[in-house]
Amino acid sequence: MPVDVSLLPNLRNIATRLRIESIRATTAAGSGHPTTCQSAADLMAALFFADMRFDPAAPQHPLADRLVMSKGHAAPLLYAMWAEAGAIPRERLTDLRLLTSDLEGHPTPRLPFVDVATGSLGQGLAAGVGSALNARRIRSDYRTYVLMGDGETAEGSVWEAAAVAHQYALDGLCAIVDINALGQSRATELQHDMETYRTRWQAFGWHALVIDGHDMGQILGALAEARATKGRPTAILARTLKGKGLSFTEGKPNWHGKPLKAEEAERAYMELEAQLEPETAALPPIPPPPAAPAAVPPAPVADPDYRLGDMIATREAYGTAIAKLATADPRVVALDADVKNSTFSERFEAAHPDRFYQCFIAEQVMIGAAMGLAARGALPFPSTFAAFLTRAADFVRMAAISGVNVKMAGSHAGVSIGEDGPSQMALEDFAMTTAQPNITVVYPADAVATERLVAEMARTPGPAYMRTSRPKTPVIYANGEQFPIGGLKVLRTSGQDQATVIAAGVTLFEALKAYDTLKAEGVHIRVIDLYSLQPVDAAALIAAGTETGRLITVEDHYRAGGIGDAVARAVAPAGLAVTRLAVSEIPRSGKPEELVDKYGISARSIAAAVRKP
Amino acid sequence: MPVDVSLLPNLRNIATRLRIESIRATTAAGSGHPTTCQSAADLMAALFFADMRFDPAAPQHPLADRLVMSKGHAAPLLYAMWAEAGAIPRERLTDLRLLTSDLEGHPTPRLPFVDVATGSLGQGLAAGVGSALNARRIRSDYRTYVLMGDGETAEGSVWEAAAVAHQYALDGLCAIVDINALGQSRATELQHDMETYRTRWQAFGWHALVIDGHDMGQILGALAEARATKGRPTAILARTLKGKGLSFTEGKPNWHGKPLKAEEAERAYMELEAQLEPETAALPPIPPPPAAPAAVPPAPVADPDYRLGDMIATREAYGTAIAKLATADPRVVALDADVKNSTFSERFEAAHPDRFYQCFIAEQVMIGAAMGLAARGALPFPSTFAAFLTRAADFVRMAAISGVNVKMAGSHAGVSIGEDGPSQMALEDFAMTTAQPNITVVYPADAVATERLVAEMARTPGPAYMRTSRPKTPVIYANGEQFPIGGLKVLRTSGQDQATVIAAGVTLFEALKAYDTLKAEGVHIRVIDLYSLQPVDAAALIAAGTETGRLITVEDHYRAGGIGDAVARAVAPAGLAVTRLAVSEIPRSGKPEELVDKYGISARSIAAAVRKP
Repeated sequence: MPVDVSLLPNLRNIATRLRIESIRATTAAGSGHPTTCQSAADLMAALFFADMRFDPAAPQHPLADRLVMSKGHAAPLLYAMWAEAGAIPRERLTDLRLLTSDLEGHPTPRLPFVDVATGSLGQGLAAGVGSALNARRIRSDYRTYVLMGDGETAEGSVWEAAAVAHQYALDGLCAIVDINALGQSRATELQHDMETYRTRWQAFGWHALVIDGHDMGQILGALAEARATKGRPTAILARTLKGKGLSFTEGKPNWHGKPLKAEEAERAYMELEAQLEPETAALPPIPPPPAAPAAVPPAPVADPDYRLGDMIATREAYGTAIAKLATADPRVVALDADVKNSTFSERFEAAHPDRFYQCFIAEQVMIGAAMGLAARGALPFPSTFAAFLTRAADFVRMAAISGVNVKMAGSHAGVSIGEDGPSQMALEDFAMTTAQPNITVVYPADAVATERLVAEMARTPGPAYMRTSRPKTPVIYANGEQFPIGGLKVLRTSGQDQATVIAAGVTLFEALKAYDTLKAEGVHIRVIDLYSLQPVDAAALIAAGTETGRLITVEDHYRAGGIGDAVARAVAPAGLAVTRLAVSEIPRSGKPEELVDKYGISARSIAAAVRKP
Repeated sequence: MPVDVSLLPNLRNIATRLRIESIRATTAAGSGHPTTCQSAADLMAALFFADMRFDPAAPQHPLADRLVMSKGHAAPLLYAMWAEAGAIPRERLTDLRLLTSDLEGHPTPRLPFVDVATGSLGQGLAAGVGSALNARRIRSDYRTYVLMGDGETAEGSVWEAAAVAHQYALDGLCAIVDINALGQSRATELQHDMETYRTRWQAFGWHALVIDGHDMGQILGALAEARATKGRPTAILARTLKGKGLSFTEGKPNWHGKPLKAEEAERAYMELEAQLEPETAALPPIPPPPAAPAAVPPAPVADPDYRLGDMIATREAYGTAIAKLATADPRVVALDADVKNSTFSERFEAAHPDRFYQCFIAEQVMIGAAMGLAARGALPFPSTFAAFLTRAADFVRMAAISGVNVKMAGSHAGVSIGEDGPSQMALEDFAMTTAQPNITVVYPADAVATERLVAEMARTPGPAYMRTSRPKTPVIYANGEQFPIGGLKVLRTSGQDQATVIAAGVTLFEALKAYDTLKAEGVHIRVIDLYSLQPVDAAALIAAGTETGRLITVEDHYRAGGIGDAVARAVAPAGLAVTRLAVSEIPRSGKPEELVDKYGISARSIAAAVRKP
């Protein structure tokens, strides 16, 4: 596409300044990745100062174009761009990586212009998919750009995201791949084989453009062509040189992650400043986004409508709950990974088809897209089998670092799923989610609790996880019952409790059965429904332990990382220890009730544990 | 390629019998996936009875061709194939999914003919890569086949595996994609768009063949062409119909994961039996693999050779250790994900380049290939940053279910890595690994412990994980010191210890500093190096808690799922509780020592915790 050549000297000068600032910051920090900034500087100068629409003073404007710096180790470049745009004082750039600065080694949303944390490579495109889906949700034409390294295209998550972007014809999404041919430890697999890159992106349904990533005219032309391309996303495949602009780093190996020494930096500034050229015209100002519409507050959600004793799986109640929530709150969206008829997210799709995103069997892009959606104001509920959420564990980790409103649901947890066998049984989902200190983790036992907790998840800021169950369980709570995050329910108690049994989800019903058995023997126990694992009601657990003398947890989860550990952490300050009933070996196929009994988490095992002195 | 047409009726009849048995077994079980078996039956009949070389009586013969059933929900088909080959009594097939049978809902290595557990879709091709790399390692021409569903090609891990297979020119690997166009909940993304499938596989460097997956002649021709194709792997892209062979299931939606009811099954047997045709010639017997060479026992490994007080990062000692181990043991191989200069696996590559596999930035295929290598007799040590091992969490889960000898190493753990920030800090790696009950988890504090524990990991059957550290730490153990799995070291003790501080890795040195500080104040503590987290020496921990009255853990890991929880689980039966010092919030960038102090795991915090009554 034709470009305005009068802009080229200015943009090249900006690129040179970005290189200088990237070197200055990393040399000051004594660590970081200057050469990866140098390869992408031309691409970013053009994008930021001759293409994108945004307001440097309001980076989170809902209609502003987005940039996801997927190659997070180019953080100094990102910071230099925002300084060049006026959002950061230039002199603060050398605070890079200081404990006292938000200019961290890799970008995090502590900075107002960062949507999602990056630095785990291969995640940014999935977030970009979410951002582009959000533009469609709010009927905006804002565009989303993702700067990727070539090395990170080895991550399968990139191709998951590419497929979903094609599926949803996301022409508001543009990937810019900085193909500098050098990874951390060696040359990349494809090096500068630009045609193979082109073939791969085209095979995934993208419009693919191969350019010289240091030719400002070609960059502007590609950006214009991307903007003009409708019906599919565009990948700008830019051939670049790592360390570009410096005689002693350009295209040279063994510079990854190494700052320049002071004397090398001085030489760099001289070489780079010599590249500054006369400017022929002023750059037009960055175009601001249009005025944002007023936010619509969510309507109240009606109470649950279940009957005590009805048999309903919590996964089914989950589907009903998110559909209902979305009717009240336009921010709510749902994603699934080809199991909508198992997680019951199909109920959401039926009610709100335009806010349901099918990711097929690709859990990483599902969570990554949810991150991008959440960062742009949506309230995403991604769901799949809890076992397969582990596929996205690194995305869950980065969602926690990002602190975004991703509300995950995992169904079919534990040995109680039965015959499908261990590959389908989540027995480590609580270990994965509770490890992250800011993830809210809940586990409802019945339909009412499920619906209440879905609403609580939506109301509570930050990432959250709900485990739902496969088997049908009776409704035990009245529709008016409240389930605050961080609470628990004491379901059975007397003045003579000899132990407290703490259960949740399917094991709660085993605990209630054990209560009946023991009561018939004259043994009284307290039974707690620990529907909120994180945060957990430490005071109530300590009180129960102190009053009854013994705490026994029972869970359809491996022994490590689940309910037993959560309770033990909570009660340790009071000097209390916990007896745990949990799955202690790799399980096998069988009928649900056989397995629950075999692995020691049935009413029989609970009663035996209570009886044991 | 020309095929022997006289075989076709027999093979078609076998396929029909496989369909009948798959239906019979799932109907008997009352659950399972018959229609996914029906779509692949022709492909598998041809592969097993007219192509593969194996011995039904010795499925683990080291030189036998391999079949990885990546679409694990087609387990009944796999079992029927082995029954047809004579390895299972046909009447046992209806034990499918019983607690008393190893014919589980998805295949696990409890069965002698299953190399790795499948059922988490998208993993089989990575295992196939490992199996094919192993053939090269042992200089065998055995071939590896991977049966995949079309739905699972949405998983990014498939494309990671495709890229590595191309990189290593694995012409011994053949993917067979059963493109039946129906996922669990709806049509697949690409449905029967065979040309897009072809383009994608070709873009990843594969020889791609599109065939009718129900035309036995085309199948045999494709298998012959795959066998004849050199220098790159082959993908057979087979257009099929889900539920093939039955008028009421063929190509019909809403049959996924549903067994036929008894009356439907009766109708199915009639329809299928009517398809049996006269046979014109006997099938030649399955060709047996060549005689296996005698296994070479590993040579003894020399003792470590370090000097007390030398400053060596455990990640560096790891690189030295695996290189040394591999010199003694030809089974040892190493894999990395473009961080060999950080994990120091580059030392292995330098010493044993033919046994080092570079996976680039693709952690899922790294662990998946390690699973395949391990299943075929290699002893793989995959390594990357511990934070990025979470990318492969689902593979770690399936490696645990498989019980394979995958020996993982994660470097750069915890806030002590410093300036790179939270995205690069593993703070949940112990939560991920200890959740699996059969993963050995170790965390050496110095170079000697690292080298000893690498050898212990190699000697101990099953999956294992070692966390290594970025900072240099002093050698504190003599070269002769032994580090049995499940042990610990008491480094400081006296007759008057007032508390036990349990540390590991980098925090051990903080504990030793705290010991000195407190001793100067007249306060004596016991200091334990808990180098083995799983299994853990419960008796010694209980003894320490009983003798000193207090147990304090300190770890560069999030509060949940790490050392504190492991110790708490171990001492709970004795009624002991644990005080935990751990990272309790999402950390940020800063200098290592600043962060260790800020997040409460430095000597200062330890001393304060001991002083607190």
